Amino acid sequence: MNDPRRVAVIGATGYAGFELARILLRHPQIEKPTFYLRDGASTVHCLTELFPQLRGWGEAPCRPFSVDAVASSGAGTAFLATPHEASLELVSPLLEAGLRVVDLSGAFRFREPETFALWYELPAPPRTLLEQAVYGLPELYSAALPSARLVANPGCYATSVILSLRPLVDVGWVRRDHGIVCDCKSGASGAGKEPKRELHFVEVDENFRAYNLFSHRHTPEITDHIGVAPEDIIFSTHLLPVARGILSTLYVWLDQPRTADEVEALYRQFYAGRPMMRIWPAGRLPELQHVVHTNFCDLGFALDAGGERLVVVSCLDNLGKGAAGQAVQNLNAMLGFEEATALR
Amino acid sequence: MNDPRRVAVIGATGYAGFELARILLRHPQIEKPTFYLRDGASTVHCLTELFPQLRGWGEAPCRPFSVDAVASSGAGTAFLATPHEASLELVSPLLEAGLRVVDLSGAFRFREPETFALWYELPAPPRTLLEQAVYGLPELYSAALPSARLVANPGCYATSVILSLRPLVDVGWVRRDHGIVCDCKSGASGAGKEPKRELHFVEVDENFRAYNLFSHRHTPEITDHIGVAPEDIIFSTHLLPVARGILSTLYVWLDQPRTADEVEALYRQFYAGRPMMRIWPAGRLPELQHVVHTNFCDLGFALDAGGERLVVVSCLDNLGKGAAGQAVQNLNAMLGFEEATALR
Amino acid sequence: MNDPRRVAVIGATGYAGFELARILLRHPQIEKPTFYLRDGASTVHCLTELFPQLRGWGEAPCRPFSVDAVASSGAGTAFLATPHEASLELVSPLLEAGLRVVDLSGAFRFREPETFALWYELPAPPRTLLEQAVYGLPELYSAALPSARLVANPGCYATSVILSLRPLVDVGWVRRDHGIVCDCKSGASGAGKEPKRELHFVEVDENFRAYNLFSHRHTPEITDHIGVAPEDIIFSTHLLPVARGILSTLYVWLDQPRTADEVEALYRQFYAGRPMMRIWPAGRLPELQHVVHTNFCDLGFALDAGGERLVVVSCLDNLGKGAAGQAVQNLNAMLGFEEATALR
Amino acid sequence: MNDPRRVAVIGATGYAGFELARILLRHPQIEKPTFYLRDGASTVHCLTELFPQLRGWGEAPCRPFSVDAVASSGAGTAFLATPHEASLELVSPLLEAGLRVVDLSGAFRFREPETFALWYELPAPPRTLLEQAVYGLPELYSAALPSARLVANPGCYATSVILSLRPLVDVGWVRRDHGIVCDCKSGASGAGKEPKRELHFVEVDENFRAYNLFSHRHTPEITDHIGVAPEDIIFSTHLLPVARGILSTLYVWLDQPRTADEVEALYRQFYAGRPMMRIWPAGRLPELQHVVHTNFCDLGFALDAGGERLVVVSCLDNLGKGAAGQAVQNLNAMLGFEEATALR
Repeated sequence: MNDPRRVAVIGATGYAGFELARILLRHPQIEKPTFYLRDGASTVHCLTELFPQLRGWGEAPCRPFSVDAVASSGAGTAFLATPHEASLELVSPLLEAGLRVVDLSGAFRFREPETFALWYELPAPPRTLLEQAVYGLPELYSAALPSARLVANPGCYATSVILSLRPLVDVGWVRRDHGIVCDCKSGASGAGKEPKRELHFVEVDENFRAYNLFSHRHTPEITDHIGVAPEDIIFSTHLLPVARGILSTLYVWLDQPRTADEVEALYRQFYAGRPMMRIWPAGRLPELQHVVHTNFCDLGFALDAGGERLVVVSCLDNLGKGAAGQAVQNLNAMLGFEEATALR
Repeated sequence: MNDPRRVAVIGATGYAGFELARILLRHPQIEKPTFYLRDGASTVHCLTELFPQLRGWGEAPCRPFSVDAVASSGAGTAFLATPHEASLELVSPLLEAGLRVVDLSGAFRFREPETFALWYELPAPPRTLLEQAVYGLPELYSAALPSARLVANPGCYATSVILSLRPLVDVGWVRRDHGIVCDCKSGASGAGKEPKRELHFVEVDENFRAYNLFSHRHTPEITDHIGVAPEDIIFSTHLLPVARGILSTLYVWLDQPRTADEVEALYRQFYAGRPMMRIWPAGRLPELQHVVHTNFCDLGFALDAGGERLVVVSCLDNLGKGAAGQAVQNLNAMLGFEEATALR
Repeated sequence: MNDPRRVAVIGATGYAGFELARILLRHPQIEKPTFYLRDGASTVHCLTELFPQLRGWGEAPCRPFSVDAVASSGAGTAFLATPHEASLELVSPLLEAGLRVVDLSGAFRFREPETFALWYELPAPPRTLLEQAVYGLPELYSAALPSARLVANPGCYATSVILSLRPLVDVGWVRRDHGIVCDCKSGASGAGKEPKRELHFVEVDENFRAYNLFSHRHTPEITDHIGVAPEDIIFSTHLLPVARGILSTLYVWLDQPRTADEVEALYRQFYAGRPMMRIWPAGRLPELQHVVHTNFCDLGFALDAGGERLVVVSCLDNLGKGAAGQAVQNLNAMLGFEEATALR
Repeated sequence: MNDPRRVAVIGATGYAGFELARILLRHPQIEKPTFYLRDGASTVHCLTELFPQLRGWGEAPCRPFSVDAVASSGAGTAFLATPHEASLELVSPLLEAGLRVVDLSGAFRFREPETFALWYELPAPPRTLLEQAVYGLPELYSAALPSARLVANPGCYATSVILSLRPLVDVGWVRRDHGIVCDCKSGASGAGKEPKRELHFVEVDENFRAYNLFSHRHTPEITDHIGVAPEDIIFSTHLLPVARGILSTLYVWLDQPRTADEVEALYRQFYAGRPMMRIWPAGRLPELQHVVHTNFCDLGFALDAGGERLVVVSCLDNLGKGAAGQAVQNLNAMLGFEEATALR
């Protein structure tokens, strides 16, 4: 039987995959990971050949990918840092080969197969797989992770919004009829590494723009996991001229006047013992710089004088807590390691 | 009597003042402006001594400031690019000396003296001055400008928000009870030129943060000029890692389902003939890069499928339409020039 | 016969072409330009359909490109903002159709056909065309421009280096045997608009790198026009995380000790009457911000205490004086307009 | 007797000090550091009160600074992340109190007291202290570090230039008579945290400038430690619009034609076994992004076809290998730890 501490990473050439490589290379409790390249670059034997800046970070052996190669390597856990289409195809055979899988794509994040098919314009994943998939947000679903065989790593925006709003919705303080506004801003690495005109340096630098209004794919993750109806929420996304980081500004009308102490206490209680959540005291707000290159999600807020209008500000690194860091946090929970291992 | 086409600029060393200098130096219908320095730099005879990059842009004579110096120079119009406190003091004597004044500070923007005193923590301006001051938003108040003796140039955020929302509120489409959210983002020049820790390059670069939640000074300008109650609106501000530009994302619930064509038509009609407003067709959104170094205010929007939730995106240059450009647009209206003179 | 003030622009979709459009749209002495698109976008009738941010800047009619279309339009002058290959093909037929041509590509910049073929790995241009081509650096070759039928607009780096060194070399102060070092840095728009991995925002932001050492294509322009042997000079190029601008730092050992006054006087004399050159006084150095969005080339310098080691710093906007602005400056010289028309 | 593994950090509020805090908090072989604040902030008990973003990184106790407080704390090693003036005063009493000191200022970097006095315009340090001070560049002076009581941590630019040139000079390949050009570019954190007009975001963003030509304070460190005369070298510095990182481009004429293999071999041999040096293969050059947030110094080069003109490119993080990281590397060498501990 394969050793779960022996880890395979499939697809490490994108931004999230590369970040995953860097985190895993310093993880003290797993065996050094093996990296599998999907596009037949059989001449590459070490990730440093592709990324010379990895020299000095440790051994990073590369092999051409095949399910057999991974299965026969003795690896017990696989990370998929692959496009949605690829993950759709690869999860089944990897599970059948006995591996546990953390998938960073969107393919297995939804309860209903049609949700994925509709929002991603791709074939629906098998319902049987969705039923066993755990949505990999350890702050909410850590109980399910130790036994999970398939973990769907959440979207970066979704992580930011869900962690901000779930405590408020759960406790019933949110006036849903009033509408919740989620105004989210992300750095450019969130859009992927593929060269595109709108991601050319000159197009992003000294610029700022909204995009995918009323149509961003992370919408159904958000409504599913905070537990509101689609019409209760407006989720909008913007492109910041920074490499990394998401800052979300969330606007909520409360059911009745609350004090700042009550709001702070609610968050502190909800996330008590969660090492990657940092609740800011009332009156101070987190900033993007505080979280980039970390796995923290920082939450702060401001309450108006009347106590009924609340603005929550959350920050995280889209490649850290929004992708690769969270994937390792999930691994830690799956294998029984301390949750923040390799993430501080 | 002084010639209104002879222009004095008081305070040209900040970002808005410098921008004003650049625009006025290319204005074909005014006499070359004279620049007055407030801090006794009597050895400076030309603005190029302070800003060598102005060489080649034309004559920019400098003189030490005094009301008498300005009055006796023959100038008929004065721009005040001075701090709020200085404007509070200088407007009266300049008006008495027979000049018409465009003030870029916040001192004369409000209907009630107490509003200024409360939000700016400074003495209240005389009510008699406020009564004659025209709020210098030509798209709304151009009728009053030709005869105005004192024009209060609007705040940069206020310009962005008012131009976006006023048409919707005026026509009665906005469900005010539902709350309007104004999520605004500005480049760092909006915070002024004074060196401060939080404006150090290292603190702004690769960063993004919210600030002054529920407490930004532009709030009462906004509620005054769109015509809603303070509790109807949440106005929040963020600092972008760019030098210039404001992008505002406005969230409005409509009174009944509308079509994108109706929304576009509303804006086009409201701003028909206004040369500095550019309405974007449904489905395309303006970006910061489209407006920086211009005097345009660009408006675009997205409407959800149900037609009841509207997101408006507006962009302008905080030093252009948000400050110096708008000041010259006001001058043009005051003196009967074509409104866009020197602004394209 | 075609009217030289009627202007055709072929290829306006790249960064330099777009900048050219913006300058020509405000040029008071030419007829409004017509823009020709090369890739058969026959449905585009106005440049604002491609670039909505051009709305409000004036009419910008677009037509599908053919030599016949241009020739029959009555245009007398054509700008080619096209790839080297396209310019190679198009210059001859346009000249034959009676147009005067300003070519922004590298195809006609060299004295010897083989130089182009070698450095650009493309077919050599006809020697007869090279013989009539004028290298479009008005500060050096303005005498030849009024009668020029073909102007080869210089490379951006070449402009920066030649304008910095030519006065020193001409007067014989440079110890060529000692080597001249040209350490040049450019913003990312200089690399073109085509999406490439290394121009992705995330790859350029917070980064800086040297490239094309000992192999940059602008090398032979530089040696040709400052008049030194290839082995006398090291020319290196770097990519700055900014959109626009070139700053070159030039290192020269002088033949004998000179004073700062002598150096400043040399430059002032050499460029006397040239409106786009700004010589900085000894002790102050130009910066990139001083020149971006302008057509100026700023020159400053520092001399060591011994007076024999000179560092020259030059700044220009690679899309302005380094490309589109210089092209219009050439047009002005060709048609007998004031040299700085539309460029201030 | 005090325990050398018990560490005091004096002055942790600047950029280098804060970076030092972050590195020391994760150092596995020292006791958790205590931070001493110099400006009497006796109400601060933990560094997270000043820097909330440090929460979750471990205990960071703060105390008001006095030599007695440090000495009586049991600390055996002190880092001084203090201004030059403060270090000048504090080193003696700390040494006398039995501590070993790593000083990040410039006060003890020179062989001659007058060198410091001249370049820094401050009193000369005592010659007796300079005689026992070790210049803390472990790649060159590791033999002296285990017994050092006072280590002068090198300047950031100096580290970059010395590590690049020393191997070439030592082996005698450099034609010094020809002149060595060091064209260096640094991010803005190198200029310190104090708010200054020229470090305002708006002044640095989209800008690039040369500064301190022929007058940068790191000059004498460079000539001292590569072993050339001041007139053999031109060292120039530029400000990049990035937060962190130094890239130096070094121009050297070789004594005779060499091959790329020879140059690469020279560097590899010189730095064999040095964990923080990464030599790039001929034909590939390091970039700033490869080294920021690391303690590596990357070296690459290009050789012209003739083999006599060499361009070396070196990259490091000015707060890492250029300051705080190097200070910890020195600590590791002083205390006998593996040199890269806490630095990868």
